[in-house]
Amino acid sequence: MLSGLQRIVGPAGLLTEPEDTAAYALEHRGNYPGKALAVVRPASVEEVSQVVRACAQRGARLIPQGGNTGLVGGSTPDDSGLEIVLSLGRMNRIRDINPQDNTMTVEAGCILQNIQEAAAAQNRMFPLTLGSEGTATIGGNLSTNAGGDQVIRYGNTREQALGLEVVLADGRIWHGLSSLRKDNTGYDLKHLFIGGEGTLGVITAATLKLYPVARQQATAWIAIRSPADAVSLLSFLRENLGDRVTAFEIMARETVNLVLMHFPAMREPLPEAAPWVILAEVSETSVRVPLQEEFETVLAEAMERDLVLDVALAASEQQSKAMWDIRSHIPEAQRKDGPSIKHDISVPISRIAEFVEVAVPAMNAIVPDIRCITFGHVGDGNLHFNQSKPASISKADFLDRADAIHEVVHEAAASVNGSISAEHGIGRQKQDILIRYKDPVAISLMVSIKQALDPSNLLNPGRLLPATDTLSSQG
Amino acid sequence: MLSGLQRIVGPAGLLTEPEDTAAYALEHRGNYPGKALAVVRPASVEEVSQVVRACAQRGARLIPQGGNTGLVGGSTPDDSGLEIVLSLGRMNRIRDINPQDNTMTVEAGCILQNIQEAAAAQNRMFPLTLGSEGTATIGGNLSTNAGGDQVIRYGNTREQALGLEVVLADGRIWHGLSSLRKDNTGYDLKHLFIGGEGTLGVITAATLKLYPVARQQATAWIAIRSPADAVSLLSFLRENLGDRVTAFEIMARETVNLVLMHFPAMREPLPEAAPWVILAEVSETSVRVPLQEEFETVLAEAMERDLVLDVALAASEQQSKAMWDIRSHIPEAQRKDGPSIKHDISVPISRIAEFVEVAVPAMNAIVPDIRCITFGHVGDGNLHFNQSKPASISKADFLDRADAIHEVVHEAAASVNGSISAEHGIGRQKQDILIRYKDPVAISLMVSIKQALDPSNLLNPGRLLPATDTLSSQG
Repeated sequence: MLSGLQRIVGPAGLLTEPEDTAAYALEHRGNYPGKALAVVRPASVEEVSQVVRACAQRGARLIPQGGNTGLVGGSTPDDSGLEIVLSLGRMNRIRDINPQDNTMTVEAGCILQNIQEAAAAQNRMFPLTLGSEGTATIGGNLSTNAGGDQVIRYGNTREQALGLEVVLADGRIWHGLSSLRKDNTGYDLKHLFIGGEGTLGVITAATLKLYPVARQQATAWIAIRSPADAVSLLSFLRENLGDRVTAFEIMARETVNLVLMHFPAMREPLPEAAPWVILAEVSETSVRVPLQEEFETVLAEAMERDLVLDVALAASEQQSKAMWDIRSHIPEAQRKDGPSIKHDISVPISRIAEFVEVAVPAMNAIVPDIRCITFGHVGDGNLHFNQSKPASISKADFLDRADAIHEVVHEAAASVNGSISAEHGIGRQKQDILIRYKDPVAISLMVSIKQALDPSNLLNPGRLLPATDTLSSQG
Repeated sequence: MLSGLQRIVGPAGLLTEPEDTAAYALEHRGNYPGKALAVVRPASVEEVSQVVRACAQRGARLIPQGGNTGLVGGSTPDDSGLEIVLSLGRMNRIRDINPQDNTMTVEAGCILQNIQEAAAAQNRMFPLTLGSEGTATIGGNLSTNAGGDQVIRYGNTREQALGLEVVLADGRIWHGLSSLRKDNTGYDLKHLFIGGEGTLGVITAATLKLYPVARQQATAWIAIRSPADAVSLLSFLRENLGDRVTAFEIMARETVNLVLMHFPAMREPLPEAAPWVILAEVSETSVRVPLQEEFETVLAEAMERDLVLDVALAASEQQSKAMWDIRSHIPEAQRKDGPSIKHDISVPISRIAEFVEVAVPAMNAIVPDIRCITFGHVGDGNLHFNQSKPASISKADFLDRADAIHEVVHEAAASVNGSISAEHGIGRQKQDILIRYKDPVAISLMVSIKQALDPSNLLNPGRLLPATDTLSSQG
């Protein structure tokens, strides 16, 4: 088996020694200790095809992996020692970039940040941005349909793909790369593999959309009363500024305070500690349109309408960065602060307020004085609704209540037609709750599709969809 | 069978008399003369479910139909008299409209224009616009992934759907309506049914995206030298105006002349007859940004760069309408002019010029003096590359060469990685060329999915995918 793989990828393409494979088997938060039979690192789509074919013939299970930055155990091997990691890291060429088509074609192992930079070098913009962009690869972004900071304006990773190249479970190559904006010739197959978490095929390359570069940006720190006002303010901004609104992040007072406590050098841009804060950014392609003045005028109108308590408009890039620093240091502040319990939910935008009103008291009922570190992307209805341990309870007691907390949060999200996984996917972490909350007809359709495309269940088996015996009981 | 259906939908919901069913069996250009066993018109998703289940039990074939404006024979019955039309026309409620979520939930039988108007009444915009919008239904738009005039900015119908409600081939209902902007809980099933031409399930409702209303627009008639300059100009406009560019239509001189000849009251906005013309529109949400001046400045820069020969900027809505009238009367001018041979191709934007340079001489080689009525959406690479009969040849001789013309056009499109069906779909018209030009692995995947979701081949059988025996020879 392994010698056959080595013949395909060469000695440099196959790792079998534990010290070489360990990094590929490790989920970076340490949640899914695993052990790989081997790590195979093909350098071309033909090699991927041969590897998959060879594994299919032997019934070997393959775990596709990009930058290994996933958060749900979807791209690392289990502890059986039988699974082979298929790392796409050596397929990292930018095959083509075409400013007239506003497209670029990249291999799955390209690091997201490199893609952003290659686009910028051609006076174009690739809009996907996220915390792990220096490590995450586009193949992983596509397979998990990553979200990130600019979804409000540009959509998720799914919306950025025009075409894909995919190796199927039997080793055949689907040559689906395309730079066409309109093509109605049958089922749009790429959408099965995007967000498919590597269970239906191995994405080896993609043609991506590029956009005009924003040549002006303006940033504001906006004090507001409530999540309901946040939603009204977003509506008002969009009615007046349209799609210039490229970020609209909400933070609860407790969230801002947590950052300021752990990073005492940071300063809040406004003197009064409002109950909720919005960090908003607007972008503009034209150099002539007076963006900053326009933003100021619209925010002044919002204040007159009593949607806004106070505003600090960044007067320089440095001030803008200082505002964003508070937002981007929330995860680190939580780490410094001690144990926390995290969620990745989304709800309809119009029901964000309702969700918060139900969920916060419910958290306090489970752990008195619990701190709800609420923040997220209002325009996507995507809340990072995290809980930090209060001083009044031991770490062990706090973590003992994690399941109860998860349950209440997921119930609260489901009760307003929300999702239990907005950005991170299902992997091995959320299969139970997927089965619990997803429409059973949808689950059944997913199983039918998996069986049609990977009948031997060799691609990322037991990820996303639970093992088959669990599913059959769903009828 | 029919009495069973009547019990489900009531007497008003079942048409069996030929004079009642004839309109549903008629493809409006008369290309696919058909005869329906019956037309069933359910009024709710439960009724659709029961109808599909009843037909599945008897092995009856169902042809889902919306506004019956399709152009490829995809939504009318064949002439066997055995197929039942499933008309969604009675499912025409707008179930919900939510300006804060920027969503509306509509039933499949809603007429597109009614959806646009309902959005406008809430100070929102639904961007799908097309010639047949007064008759076409959103269910048909979704099933064929309709394109239209604003794809350059907003994408195809596919991009407008957040969730679907679908009745599957066995009658089960998939409750996939959702207004979430981020939801990574498994395969994105809606994309199978969008553009699936009714072969995988019956779309009964959809949750659609809404957008801010454009409160300013500006229109320009732009004389240019060549398709290559059109592509460069579009790049230049986007770099400077960003996504304000909401239409960018190209017309060859012969196309403009054809309209002016048949509608002598129309006047071309510029005195010189340039070889190619662009009709461009820009839109702006803000009332304060000086859109017209900005557009004028950028076009003046383009002229300095020698991308543009001359420009007429519409100074009033009336002038703008006069410009658009020329564009929108092209199909009628072709009808008045006599026989024509039409195509619906797309090519990568950067290869439009190459396509035209190859295809026009090739047309003249088949029919000397043939008039190539070239026009289309540059931003989507979507050309309506139609041929009108020259005086030098008889109608019969001209139409005799239609197959040769189609062949050359499709070959030319394929040779630059284009598509043989940009907007209209496959239906019964383009199955042969689908098989010829589509990657065989893609065809094989499509067949697997069809078999997984509609194993008895009862939903729109023989549309999109050819009959199974044709396919098996593809291996």
